[in-house]
Order: sequence, then C-alpha cells, then structure tokens
Amino acid sequence: MSMRALINGVETDCVSVADRGLQYGDGLFETIAVRDGGLCLWRGHFDRLFDGARRFGIPCPSQGMLLDECQRSIDSCSSGVLKIVLTRGSGGRGYRPPADPHPTRIVSLHPWPDYPLDWADRGVAVILCRTLLGENALLAGHKHLNRLEQVLARSEWRDPQIAEGIMQDGRGRVIGGTMSNLFLVSNGRLYTPRLDTCGVSGTARALVLRLAGEHDLEVTQTDVAQADLVAADGLFLTNALIGVWPVRRLAAKPMCLNHLPGKLIAAVRRAALTPED
Amino acid sequence: MSMRALINGVETDCVSVADRGLQYGDGLFETIAVRDGGLCLWRGHFDRLFDGARRFGIPCPSQGMLLDECQRSIDSCSSGVLKIVLTRGSGGRGYRPPADPHPTRIVSLHPWPDYPLDWADRGVAVILCRTLLGENALLAGHKHLNRLEQVLARSEWRDPQIAEGIMQDGRGRVIGGTMSNLFLVSNGRLYTPRLDTCGVSGTARALVLRLAGEHDLEVTQTDVAQADLVAADGLFLTNALIGVWPVRRLAAKPMCLNHLPGKLIAAVRRAALTPED
Repeated sequence: MSMRALINGVETDCVSVADRGLQYGDGLFETIAVRDGGLCLWRGHFDRLFDGARRFGIPCPSQGMLLDECQRSIDSCSSGVLKIVLTRGSGGRGYRPPADPHPTRIVSLHPWPDYPLDWADRGVAVILCRTLLGENALLAGHKHLNRLEQVLARSEWRDPQIAEGIMQDGRGRVIGGTMSNLFLVSNGRLYTPRLDTCGVSGTARALVLRLAGEHDLEVTQTDVAQADLVAADGLFLTNALIGVWPVRRLAAKPMCLNHLPGKLIAAVRRAALTPED
Repeated sequence: MSMRALINGVETDCVSVADRGLQYGDGLFETIAVRDGGLCLWRGHFDRLFDGARRFGIPCPSQGMLLDECQRSIDSCSSGVLKIVLTRGSGGRGYRPPADPHPTRIVSLHPWPDYPLDWADRGVAVILCRTLLGENALLAGHKHLNRLEQVLARSEWRDPQIAEGIMQDGRGRVIGGTMSNLFLVSNGRLYTPRLDTCGVSGTARALVLRLAGEHDLEVTQTDVAQADLVAADGLFLTNALIGVWPVRRLAAKPMCLNHLPGKLIAAVRRAALTPED
C-alpha cells in the first residue's frame, strides 16, 4: 500500500528507518475529520497534540505551520480523514532521547471511513474485549503511538456487524472503546470513565463535557465497572470521526435508546462534524 | 541521520509512512551483539522474535531467510549491533490488523556502543526511575515496539556516570532496568523479578537462568520490592550487549561486589558475547 504524505512539509511516501516513531513508538498522533473541505475540532486536536508534546518533551510545531500543511494536504478534497503524526525524529543512542531533537511531522489524507450510515441513528452493536489496558498515569489521556493494546483488542472480532469493542484496565474498570470514548446514562444523569491512568482523552469527549451544561446536564467522570454498563439506561460512544454512536446492543444485551440525551447528542454531532477554520 | 538497512531484503534507508510499526508500534524488535563477525545468542533472539510474532499474530519470517539477511548486513564488520525490527506491515483500517498481513522486516547494523570499559569490572552506578511501567500480561516479556515508558525513563538522567535506571510497576514491584534485566544476591541465593505483567524477557537473563545450575546456584523469579534492592548483598544487570554489569552504586547507596557469583558471571559473559553461528 502506498500512501502520500507531507513529511516536514515535503511530499513523500516514506520515512527514515531510524525514526524513533518506528523504533519505539516515540511520538503522538491526531485523527481529524475533514468535512466540506475544512478541519473539524481543529483547536481541540492541536491542543491535545501540544499537551502531549510538552509531556513527552517533543518540540511541537507551530499551530500556523501545521495548519498550513493540513490545508495543503486537504487541497480540494471535500470529505476525508486527516492524520497528523508527530515523532521525536531520528537519533539518540537506544531509548535515550537526543538532547536536541528534530521532530518528524507527518500529515496525510485518507478516505472517509465507510461506516454504515444507519449506525448513527439506529445505534451500534459492541462487544467486551478480553484485551486489557495497562495503567500508566504518565501516558494516560495522550494519543501516543504505543497502540499495541488497541490493535490486539481490535483483532478480537471480524464480524462487520460489530462496530466497537469496550476495553477495561487490569483492575476491571471500564475505560472506553478501542477507538472511542464511552458515556453512560443512568437515572437521567451522565457518566464517563475517568482517564487518569489509561485511555485517550478524546476531542469529541471533551465536546460532550463542554456542551452538557448548555443542555442542563452534568457529566460525572468516575470509575465504571462492567456491572454499571449492563445496568445503564443507555450508552453512547464518541470520537472525532463518528461524532456519536448510540449503543443498541452490548454483547448479548439489547440496550434501550430512549433515555439518551437526544438534543445534546445532536449538538455534539453538529459541533464535531462542522469545520472550525 | 541516515541509516542503511535491509527492508524485506532490499537495501534502503526508508520505510513506508503507512507501516503499522510507525503508525501504532505494531511490531517487535531484537538487538543482537555482533562479535568476531558473528551473531551472539542468535537462537535466543530468534526464539523470542518467533514467540512474540505468534502472540501478536504477525507472520514470522523463516529463520534461514532472516539469518541470511543478518549475515548480509554484517558483511565484513567484526563488531557491532545488529537490530531486527519486524512489523505487521502496511494497511488495515485504523487499529484493525489486515486479514492477510505482509510483514516488514528491517535489518540494520550499528556501531558497538561506547560504554566505559571498566563498567564490566568495577561495576556501574544506577538510579531509581520515577517513570513507572504499566502492567499488561498480554505484552509482558515480549520485545515489542511500544517503548515510550523506557524512552521517558531514560530521559530522566543525562549524567554519563549513570549507566542505567531501575523501573518499577504501578504496584511498587521492581521490574528491571530501562534496557536490562536485574538480579539480586541475598544470603548466597539469586533472585530476579518475575516478568508476568511487564518487562522484557532478556536473552542474557535466560542465559543466567540456564547456566546457574551448572554453578550450583538456583535463581528464584519473584516479586521484588525496592526495600529488597537496598537490602541485597549484591546486584547485577544483564542484556545482550553488556553481558553483565555489576552494580556498585544504587542511587546514593554503595553496593558491595564481593558477594556476586563471579564464575557464573564470567560464564554468562562468555556465552553472551561469543558468536553462536
């Protein structure tokens, strides 16, 4: 498979074999929805990349330069997925990061994913994954390149009717989907797993937290057990590409969609899939 | 920095930007000592790569082909470090592995590391890292490409007098060095951390376990607390390049070298740094 990308501003399809992104997963990424030729949730994506880069000591490119390269990559494309990868670049002896890193930034454009259109309205079927998430407060929340756990979890099913798999940590706390964040509705209140020791702090998740107040809803970030999922009045998943997917089946259990906060969900979808810039 | 490598048998210095090794750390690696123009501990390295590939569902290249490419890479070089990276190759939508993966194998040769020569005899100074290891039984022991924890731990010091940093898991169990395994001597007995939920099962560590019996020593794989380190009569580190380093200082505490099993250590060094093939 060939894939064109801008690497540090230059169009190419390959990256140095010495890049620490390949050697150690020493980097971060963002996956951005492109709609009507514009970037959705740009601010949230850039802020998360910036935070992650600061946490890991990787110099972050300026927002202006990165935005310019993203727009060059989109070109005349109306709809797609823009991926940014930022690595610590090449070099350094072994794990030791170079004192003066020259980061690699990779911007590439991909087709819009072909998820069935009715998943957003009718809801999706999800399974519970056996693959667990390791806990590390230093990495938690960041969208870093160490994603073997998600790859192994995603390899647990091939049934195209299954949209997502729910992952737990080693202590049995539910964290979220392999590529999405999870929300629970219970007695008219909203809950979402705390992401203090694992999981990715999604841009669409942040949108739910931000917009809930406007709909007189509060979201509690808390520990979630598997039993809480089964007992919930409703579940939904979020990410930057899907916006919101209601859950209509959790493993063998049908889930009701009637208790989901419809107006909030509509507002999140609109905000997640409307270009910002 | 440029780096020549054999990628799937072809000499090049770059890898596809779509490679899952870069995108997700979806792969494994081995770091092999080259001495007198030959590969050391080849069998141990290949077996570990094979086991990891099976665990992660990555087709493993045949031993014969890989050995051939390693020998081509060594060429007429007498001493160095040969690195093998095996990734799941390109493709697949998101985390989902392709049904029919075409793995990428990367073989590259590097200079022998310039560690001070007296570290092997006089011992090394080590620190205790603040960066913790996440636990995941599915990944434990394998030398996979998700190495951000080690990168962050190794970035905790720049003092060239410090040879290594010791890492613990989130429960306070000592696991090993950022790039080495750890052994403790206590009342004439040998102990090494269990690697059931994190850490890398080193080829030189396996050598210690195998050769101990010939020296009437037993090694117990057990949970090790920081207090056990401080109370130990002696400590040493192993990996495929260093062979064995005695520890002469643990953070601020001087460690005695007198109680180390000298004959076993000499035998491990010899076996670790003599070509097998």
